[in-house]
Amino acid sequence: MHKKEQEYFEIIENIFKLVKAEENLGETANYIPELAKVNGEKFGVSLLFLDGLQFGFGDCDEKFSIQSISKVLLLALVYSEIGEEIWKRVDVEPSGTPFNSLLQLESDKGIPRNPFINAGALVICDILIDRCKNPKQHFLDFMKKVSGNSTIQFSERIAENELATGFRNAALTNFIKSLGNINNSPEEVLDLYTHICSIELSCKELCTTFTFLANGGKNLFDNKQILSTSQTKRVNAIMQTCGFYDESGEFAFRVGLPGKSGVGGGIVAVMPKHYVVSVWSPKLNPKGNSYRGMKFLEEFTTATEDSIF
Amino acid sequence: MHKKEQEYFEIIENIFKLVKAEENLGETANYIPELAKVNGEKFGVSLLFLDGLQFGFGDCDEKFSIQSISKVLLLALVYSEIGEEIWKRVDVEPSGTPFNSLLQLESDKGIPRNPFINAGALVICDILIDRCKNPKQHFLDFMKKVSGNSTIQFSERIAENELATGFRNAALTNFIKSLGNINNSPEEVLDLYTHICSIELSCKELCTTFTFLANGGKNLFDNKQILSTSQTKRVNAIMQTCGFYDESGEFAFRVGLPGKSGVGGGIVAVMPKHYVVSVWSPKLNPKGNSYRGMKFLEEFTTATEDSIF
Amino acid sequence: MHKKEQEYFEIIENIFKLVKAEENLGETANYIPELAKVNGEKFGVSLLFLDGLQFGFGDCDEKFSIQSISKVLLLALVYSEIGEEIWKRVDVEPSGTPFNSLLQLESDKGIPRNPFINAGALVICDILIDRCKNPKQHFLDFMKKVSGNSTIQFSERIAENELATGFRNAALTNFIKSLGNINNSPEEVLDLYTHICSIELSCKELCTTFTFLANGGKNLFDNKQILSTSQTKRVNAIMQTCGFYDESGEFAFRVGLPGKSGVGGGIVAVMPKHYVVSVWSPKLNPKGNSYRGMKFLEEFTTATEDSIF
Amino acid sequence: MHKKEQEYFEIIENIFKLVKAEENLGETANYIPELAKVNGEKFGVSLLFLDGLQFGFGDCDEKFSIQSISKVLLLALVYSEIGEEIWKRVDVEPSGTPFNSLLQLESDKGIPRNPFINAGALVICDILIDRCKNPKQHFLDFMKKVSGNSTIQFSERIAENELATGFRNAALTNFIKSLGNINNSPEEVLDLYTHICSIELSCKELCTTFTFLANGGKNLFDNKQILSTSQTKRVNAIMQTCGFYDESGEFAFRVGLPGKSGVGGGIVAVMPKHYVVSVWSPKLNPKGNSYRGMKFLEEFTTATEDSIF
Repeated sequence: MHKKEQEYFEIIENIFKLVKAEENLGETANYIPELAKVNGEKFGVSLLFLDGLQFGFGDCDEKFSIQSISKVLLLALVYSEIGEEIWKRVDVEPSGTPFNSLLQLESDKGIPRNPFINAGALVICDILIDRCKNPKQHFLDFMKKVSGNSTIQFSERIAENELATGFRNAALTNFIKSLGNINNSPEEVLDLYTHICSIELSCKELCTTFTFLANGGKNLFDNKQILSTSQTKRVNAIMQTCGFYDESGEFAFRVGLPGKSGVGGGIVAVMPKHYVVSVWSPKLNPKGNSYRGMKFLEEFTTATEDSIF
Repeated sequence: MHKKEQEYFEIIENIFKLVKAEENLGETANYIPELAKVNGEKFGVSLLFLDGLQFGFGDCDEKFSIQSISKVLLLALVYSEIGEEIWKRVDVEPSGTPFNSLLQLESDKGIPRNPFINAGALVICDILIDRCKNPKQHFLDFMKKVSGNSTIQFSERIAENELATGFRNAALTNFIKSLGNINNSPEEVLDLYTHICSIELSCKELCTTFTFLANGGKNLFDNKQILSTSQTKRVNAIMQTCGFYDESGEFAFRVGLPGKSGVGGGIVAVMPKHYVVSVWSPKLNPKGNSYRGMKFLEEFTTATEDSIF
Repeated sequence: MHKKEQEYFEIIENIFKLVKAEENLGETANYIPELAKVNGEKFGVSLLFLDGLQFGFGDCDEKFSIQSISKVLLLALVYSEIGEEIWKRVDVEPSGTPFNSLLQLESDKGIPRNPFINAGALVICDILIDRCKNPKQHFLDFMKKVSGNSTIQFSERIAENELATGFRNAALTNFIKSLGNINNSPEEVLDLYTHICSIELSCKELCTTFTFLANGGKNLFDNKQILSTSQTKRVNAIMQTCGFYDESGEFAFRVGLPGKSGVGGGIVAVMPKHYVVSVWSPKLNPKGNSYRGMKFLEEFTTATEDSIF
Repeated sequence: MHKKEQEYFEIIENIFKLVKAEENLGETANYIPELAKVNGEKFGVSLLFLDGLQFGFGDCDEKFSIQSISKVLLLALVYSEIGEEIWKRVDVEPSGTPFNSLLQLESDKGIPRNPFINAGALVICDILIDRCKNPKQHFLDFMKKVSGNSTIQFSERIAENELATGFRNAALTNFIKSLGNINNSPEEVLDLYTHICSIELSCKELCTTFTFLANGGKNLFDNKQILSTSQTKRVNAIMQTCGFYDESGEFAFRVGLPGKSGVGGGIVAVMPKHYVVSVWSPKLNPKGNSYRGMKFLEEFTTATEDSIF
């Protein structure tokens, strides 16, 4: 362990304890019954340097539902295959408030504002269905390719659970289809979408899986090029401007790293050319991002003075 | 000149010629009569390295109206004086579409989404008026402090011109006042705002003036600390997420540097710890950003492979 | 025939010829394939006085798809059974522009603005499903009761046709369900809704069916009380303020009678205590109301000087 | 007094006592300081039959600020002079929710939805300024013409009071001007508007003033034709669909007469060919309409079974 790595270890250890000692505010996501059951006090952190060194604290080996974090991997998969064509179907702008998402779809003729709002991910699912016979298997194959982990599976339990209650996503899919930007049946699109969101990873696995985004598009473990350098920067740019719903500006402002959150309470962020850091704590703030996760990352980049800016 | 600097010189020279040779699309801003008169074919570029070396091409020494670029300097001034207090009056989130800005103000109780939309800059003007006897002079003093140029003046011609036609800004100011987030009279706020937007700088001067944002908050020429390191990163983060209206995501995606544009056709961008780059070309794309400016910066960061991501 | 009736006969005959002679602008509804096939030049008119006298001109005996006109009958059925309870689930305000309907639903917690926008009729379908075993048969029974016509059937051809392309309605139903104001499955609600909209009547039959709304709530042919006097006035009031989407104010202004239109090109209007008038012409104006129907009714009430105001 | 008139006298007397005995909910308008000072318990009612008989109960002779009720008179004045031309500058559709009024103005290119929202009345003020040298005097002259009362004056106290705090109206005026539908300076338009809204009348005077709208466009006292029959019906139609902000549907539904309310707590309604009724009680419900006024009118038309529907 280098001196700098030693410092990071101590910084993370301290902040982890500090944040754990403070009151844990927020609520676990309650609109997906399976997520509501998760113990809200779970708290894990991991950091993986590009030289291969990885730390982990707390519940860093416990798998959790990564939910919307999957949208980055879905984007990476389809972007790697069809390149800039993808932007004919989805835009790269922050969406402002959640409140206007349906309005925007209408005035933008069914083109979602970015790939990380539900509308955007649903459209990318539709592209995937158009392109392959078995889109679920194709996504799993990609997950295995970037994570090096051949045991990754969908959680049928969570996928079903969400499908049964996901009337808002069904509304969105039907609405986009009525505007002409979905080709397949709403049922197929929703089925793929909920499966993709159902993936479970631990903090440690999440770091490994996202390494290519810190590493110029290449896996660390086998040096495979997943995205080109330019595409990698672009995915990071979209994470920076759109990764945290209507708290994206706040995350850029306070944390200063590209990242993505999910309603399961996970957050992953990358410091390009240096490391990937992930955190998991299920209680969410009112904007739908992990309360402790946001707090941890803010303290972390304040202490290390890391920021892309 | 170092070898790297030599390379940049050649890259810029080539791209400048290339973009100049292509058709110059877009329109000069027509709602401010003085700006509509400007020759749309003007085209200047400048780059200033933090070691002090500066290049310039084309009309890089001609002054132009920096308009909204001033909002970054207004923010820097007030942020340096009242610190994090400022965020009680204005938020740091991208605004999504122009179309919903008034709606958002209402649902957000008069708190503008960020300091770089007109609503946000008007509120910061109001703070400045509350804090000092002669806010215009105070702003000029700050301009002189960061630019090292004691001859900077407001363009009364442009300020009056905009005041006379600025009914949209008058609507905005009265609306925010009705929501309780403006203390002073709309007339005073609008007068200060239009003066601040009337500043004229050349591309070269623009680079010098923005150097502190690439340099950890310090001036290059006299080493004065304008903003703390952390504040500097935060201003850069806001430029990244909110600097180009509803093309902010696109700019992060294509150019990958924090920056700010103005309807006068100017754009300035910073590569933290390395350089400031500015470009001026008055014809604007439909989103209100310089057509050639956007093109130049995209080609430039593609060629240099520079990006914060 | 009384003298006044004789006058009306001549007025209608003249206006019918006049409107038929003019150019027939507009387009037949094209989003429902079966409706797009209808001959756009069809034109029928009927008027039924409360003394039983009925006129008819042109294609007044040809059945057409009454579409949204059915929403009045759906409202009357459920209102007659559950009374003022119904207003807990749907409001009575005009909706303004089509453009904000989804937004309004969200801010109004799933309570549609009125029973005559699709959202409102979908919620009333949901109430009907909750209340009876065979809601389709129950609606047909009501249709028979008010029309005196025991042969009325759903058009399965049109119902299927609409269901297959009705992604916008599917979006709406799922959205309202996500907001908690639909109890049954979206599929069931949509199935009932599309069947109710599939009813076909001729202009003459339409007059008979709506007679109770001109007659203080009573059928003419068998004197059965369908709605109380007060309920009847209230249904007429809602037709007046909400019967023509965002052309409701225009209809009140130009025609001055409570009425309801459908995208099949039908319009029915009532002059309380005097008569029911109906018109059918499939080409629609940009607001979705029959081009010739609007024209005919405006000329008609101008000539007769009838108006409730 | 006819037998029917005797019945109405007793009905009104009873309902007046009943409503007075119940708790008086709501709040007096607080954004205009002068209105906030008014005694919230004031309660007056008047009814004027077209045969000239007039009743009055409670504070029916006390003048109050009629506020938005003036918009009907402003419309009548300008409509009588320029006819259907007026509809090029303002529409006749209900506005839906208050919440989207600014949005609608933008998408409708500065054409207000109807003459009874502030935006609409401001535009009509602008037309009046364009048409005459002394628009204030011209309006007073019209007021005298329809009221038969030559002592009517603006309340400078209320006009100034509102101007000083009317930032929302200033926002609206500037916004419409930026969209091109106001010709004169915002100051002039606002000055005329606030004067027009400052008129004070008693319930009895209000009935007299609005008689022409119940009487086919003619004054009762001197038989002068103020509006044509057709124009009169149209103004009544707009009152019905747009007279009570986003409670217009509710008023049509519950009361069933065309009418108009003001934030001073006044309401006037007409039963065409029969009578004018007015009520004043300063406490407002959450939609900005008189709490007791709405209650009184609902009970009144329930008891009399009067309704235009």
